[in-house]
Amino acid sequence: MNWSLTIDKALPRPLRIILRGVGQVFFCCNAVTGLIFLVALFIGSVTAGAAATVGVISSTVAAYLLGFSEDDIDAGLYGFNGTLVGPCLFLFLEHSPQLWLYVVLASILSSIVLAALMRILHPYNVPASTSPFVLTCWMFLVAVYAFDSFTRGPILPPPGIPTVVTGVGAIPAEVWFTALTKGIGEVMFADSVVVGILFLTGIAIVSWRGALMALSGAFVGVIVPMLFGANQNLIEMGLYAFNPVLTMMALGWVFLKPSGKSAVLAILAGILTVVCQAGLASFLTPIGLPTLTFPFVLVMWMFLFAAGKSKYWSGPAAK
Amino acid sequence: MNWSLTIDKALPRPLRIILRGVGQVFFCCNAVTGLIFLVALFIGSVTAGAAATVGVISSTVAAYLLGFSEDDIDAGLYGFNGTLVGPCLFLFLEHSPQLWLYVVLASILSSIVLAALMRILHPYNVPASTSPFVLTCWMFLVAVYAFDSFTRGPILPPPGIPTVVTGVGAIPAEVWFTALTKGIGEVMFADSVVVGILFLTGIAIVSWRGALMALSGAFVGVIVPMLFGANQNLIEMGLYAFNPVLTMMALGWVFLKPSGKSAVLAILAGILTVVCQAGLASFLTPIGLPTLTFPFVLVMWMFLFAAGKSKYWSGPAAK
Amino acid sequence: MNWSLTIDKALPRPLRIILRGVGQVFFCCNAVTGLIFLVALFIGSVTAGAAATVGVISSTVAAYLLGFSEDDIDAGLYGFNGTLVGPCLFLFLEHSPQLWLYVVLASILSSIVLAALMRILHPYNVPASTSPFVLTCWMFLVAVYAFDSFTRGPILPPPGIPTVVTGVGAIPAEVWFTALTKGIGEVMFADSVVVGILFLTGIAIVSWRGALMALSGAFVGVIVPMLFGANQNLIEMGLYAFNPVLTMMALGWVFLKPSGKSAVLAILAGILTVVCQAGLASFLTPIGLPTLTFPFVLVMWMFLFAAGKSKYWSGPAAK
Repeated sequence: MNWSLTIDKALPRPLRIILRGVGQVFFCCNAVTGLIFLVALFIGSVTAGAAATVGVISSTVAAYLLGFSEDDIDAGLYGFNGTLVGPCLFLFLEHSPQLWLYVVLASILSSIVLAALMRILHPYNVPASTSPFVLTCWMFLVAVYAFDSFTRGPILPPPGIPTVVTGVGAIPAEVWFTALTKGIGEVMFADSVVVGILFLTGIAIVSWRGALMALSGAFVGVIVPMLFGANQNLIEMGLYAFNPVLTMMALGWVFLKPSGKSAVLAILAGILTVVCQAGLASFLTPIGLPTLTFPFVLVMWMFLFAAGKSKYWSGPAAK
Repeated sequence: MNWSLTIDKALPRPLRIILRGVGQVFFCCNAVTGLIFLVALFIGSVTAGAAATVGVISSTVAAYLLGFSEDDIDAGLYGFNGTLVGPCLFLFLEHSPQLWLYVVLASILSSIVLAALMRILHPYNVPASTSPFVLTCWMFLVAVYAFDSFTRGPILPPPGIPTVVTGVGAIPAEVWFTALTKGIGEVMFADSVVVGILFLTGIAIVSWRGALMALSGAFVGVIVPMLFGANQNLIEMGLYAFNPVLTMMALGWVFLKPSGKSAVLAILAGILTVVCQAGLASFLTPIGLPTLTFPFVLVMWMFLFAAGKSKYWSGPAAK
Repeated sequence: MNWSLTIDKALPRPLRIILRGVGQVFFCCNAVTGLIFLVALFIGSVTAGAAATVGVISSTVAAYLLGFSEDDIDAGLYGFNGTLVGPCLFLFLEHSPQLWLYVVLASILSSIVLAALMRILHPYNVPASTSPFVLTCWMFLVAVYAFDSFTRGPILPPPGIPTVVTGVGAIPAEVWFTALTKGIGEVMFADSVVVGILFLTGIAIVSWRGALMALSGAFVGVIVPMLFGANQNLIEMGLYAFNPVLTMMALGWVFLKPSGKSAVLAILAGILTVVCQAGLASFLTPIGLPTLTFPFVLVMWMFLFAAGKSKYWSGPAAK
C-alpha cells in the first residue's frame, strides 16, 4: 500500500507526527491511517475527536519538551497514549471547561510514564503499549472522588462488591455485525458501527494481516464470552471484543514474526484476554473503575516475555 | 536416599517428568516423591487427584509445545504450577464438565506466566516458584463473577469489607497434631491429616532437612497466629501454616546454602509470612479471593532479593 | 553549613548512624539535622519520638546483622524507613505493650525490603526511598483485622466504598501558615506547627535549596487541592502537602542536577502527586488504609525512570 506511505512522507513533520500518533493506537505508523481514525472519531462524536486531538498534541509536545527520543516521537509513539487519554476522560467524567486542563495534565503524565516503562521494558524487547494510558487514566478517574471540580459520569461502573452476572443469553444473528464492528470501535471508546468500519479500513490500508487479526480478535471477543455465559448486552456493545482485537493484532501481526504458529498463539492469547478482562473487571469493582485496555496489555506482556524463553516463537520484532 | 533417585531415573521419561512436576510443589525433583504426593491427593479426594493430574499434564505439554527449555521441563518445573491449578479450581468452584476445560486453559496460562517470570527473575537468581499458579488462579477465580457457565463454590470467601477477627482462642493440646499435619496438607488444598503425613514422608525421602523445615514451618504457622490472636478455626485447619511451611523449606533448605544462619533466617521469614498472610487476606476481602500461596512467594522474594545485598547470606542456590 | 557536618563527623559512630537515619527521612545525611528531627518528634509526642527511636535502631541493627553494605548503613540509609515505621504504627493502632514488638518486627522487615528493592532499582539509578516503609506498614496495618492482639485506632480510615468528597471550601488566609507547616510535619505524622518549623530548620541547616523545595511542595499541596476542590479539613491539616513536599525535595534538590529546569519538573511532579494521592486514597478505601508516602514514591519513580530517556534532564545523582 505504497500510496498511503507516500502521502505520510509528504506531510509537514508536525502534522505527520500527530497523525501517526493517532494511527499508533492500532499499531499503524502511518499518517493517512491516523487521519482516517481521527475523522472517524469526529464522526462518532465531535467531543471525542477534539479530546483525542488535544490529548495527542499534549503528550507529543510534552515528550518533545522533556527531551525524549526524537525517533520515537517521529514514529508517533508519544502520541497514541494521549490520543486515548482524551476520549477516555471525556467519556467517563462530566464535561466541564476544567476537564480540558485535566486531559492535558493526564496526557503529559502518560508520556512520562511511557518513557519510564520503555526504560524498564526495553532490555526485554517488550513494548509498554497502552499501559501508560491505562495507569494514568485509572489514577485520574479514581482521584475524582476527592475533587469537587470534577464529577464521575453515569457510564463509570459504580463502586461496590462484585456480583454474579445477570442478563445472560446468546446474541441473535442479526446483531453479530454490530457486535464485531463496535468491538473494533470501542478500542477508542466509540460505540458505533460506522466508526468501527472506518477503523478497520484504516488498518487495512497498512496491512491486510493486521485487519484480519483485528477482525479475528473481534470474533474471539464475541464467541468466547458467549460460550462462557457473559452478559449479553456487554457482548453486543463490543465491550468483550476490543481487548482481544488489540491482543490478536499485537501477537498475530506486530510483535511476533507473522506465521501460522503466531496466528495460533494469537488466538490462544485472545481467548485468555477474555478471561483476564472478566477477572480484572471484578478486581476493579470495589473502586468503580473500568478495565480499559489493561487485559490486552497484561496478556500481551506475558506472551512476549515468555517468547524470549521459547525456541519456536520468533522473539518480538522491533517496536 | 539413593534408592528413590534410582527409581526416578529408571522411569520412562514422560512419566518421570509428570511425577517430578508433582514433586516440585514441595521443591522435590524426584518422581517417587511425586508419586507419593499424587497418591496422597487421590486418597484425600479422587477429584482433587484427577484435577492435579490434568493440571500437571496440561502445563507440561503446553511448555513442550511452546518450545520452553527442555532442561526445565525435565526437572518438572513446568509441572508444579499446573498441579496446583487443578485442585485449586475444583476446590473453589462448583464442579461441572466445562470446569475441566477451565483447568486446562488455566494450566496452559500458568506455563506461559512461568516462562515470562523466569525471564524477568533469572538474572537475579530468584525463582518464580508458585507465583504463576497464584496469579493465574486469582484471575480465573475472580473472572467467574462474569461467567454464567462457572459458579463460585461455598468455600470461597464472600466479597465484602474486611472485619475484625472473631472466634479467637488457644487451640487445645490434642488438636496440635491435626493442625501441624493439615498445615502441610493444605499446601495442596488437602484438609486431611493422612495427606499431610504422606506429603511429609515424600519430602523426607528426598531430604531430612527439607522435612524438618516443613515441620518447623507448620509449628511457626500454629504458634505465631496463636500469639497474635488469630481465628482458632483457621489455625486448627492449618490455614495459617501452609505458607510458612513453604517459606521455611525455600529459605532453610532449597534456595540458601543450608546452615545455622539460614535456619534462623527461615524462622524469621516464617514469622513474617504469618503477618503477610493476614494482611494479604484483608487486601483480597473486597473481591472475595483467598491468598493461596502468595504470602510465601512475597516473603521469599524479599529475602532472596535481599540475599544478593548481604555479605553473610549465601546467595540463592541454583533453581 | 560546615559546622553541622563537623559535629556530625565528631560523633561516636553508632550515634551518628542512628541520627543520620532519622535525618534521611528528609534526604539529609547529617546527624545534627537528625537530632533536630528527633527532638521535634519528642516535642510533638513522647510516644512518637520513642517509637521512631525504636524503629530506627531496629532497622539499622537488623541491616548490620544481616550483613548489608556498611557504606549504606553509615549513610543512615537503613534507618529512615524504621524511623517512619515506629510513629506510623503508633499513630494508627491502639497502644499496647506488644505493639513495641510489632514495631521491631516491621522495622526489621523494612530493612529486608529495602535491600531487595535496592538490588532491583540500583541498575536504573533509582532509589527505593520510603517505599519499604510504606509496603511494610500497609501489610502490618491491614493484617491487624485478623489479629486480636492488635487493634485499629480511630484515625485509620474505615474500610468501605469510595464516596464523593464533602466539606469543600477555600481555606482562610490565617490558616495558610498552619497548613504549610503541618504539611511538612505530617511527613513524620506530626499534626503540629512547631514540629513542621523544626523539620524545616533541620533541612535548612543542610541546604537552602532543600528547604525551599520543601516549602514549595507544601504550597503546591495547599493550592492545587484547593483549585481541584478537595476537602478543606484535609488541606488545613497538611494531609495533601506532605507528599508533594517529598516529591519536590527529591526532584528539585536531591536526585536531579539542581537547575531551573529541574525546579520546573519538580513543580509539575508536585502537582501530579496531588492527583496521585487522591487516586491512591480511593484505591485503598475498600480495605481502610492510608496512602502514607506512596504517592510521592510513585511519582518520583516515574520521573526518575523517565529521566534516563531524556537528553535534557540530568540523570539521577548518586543515592
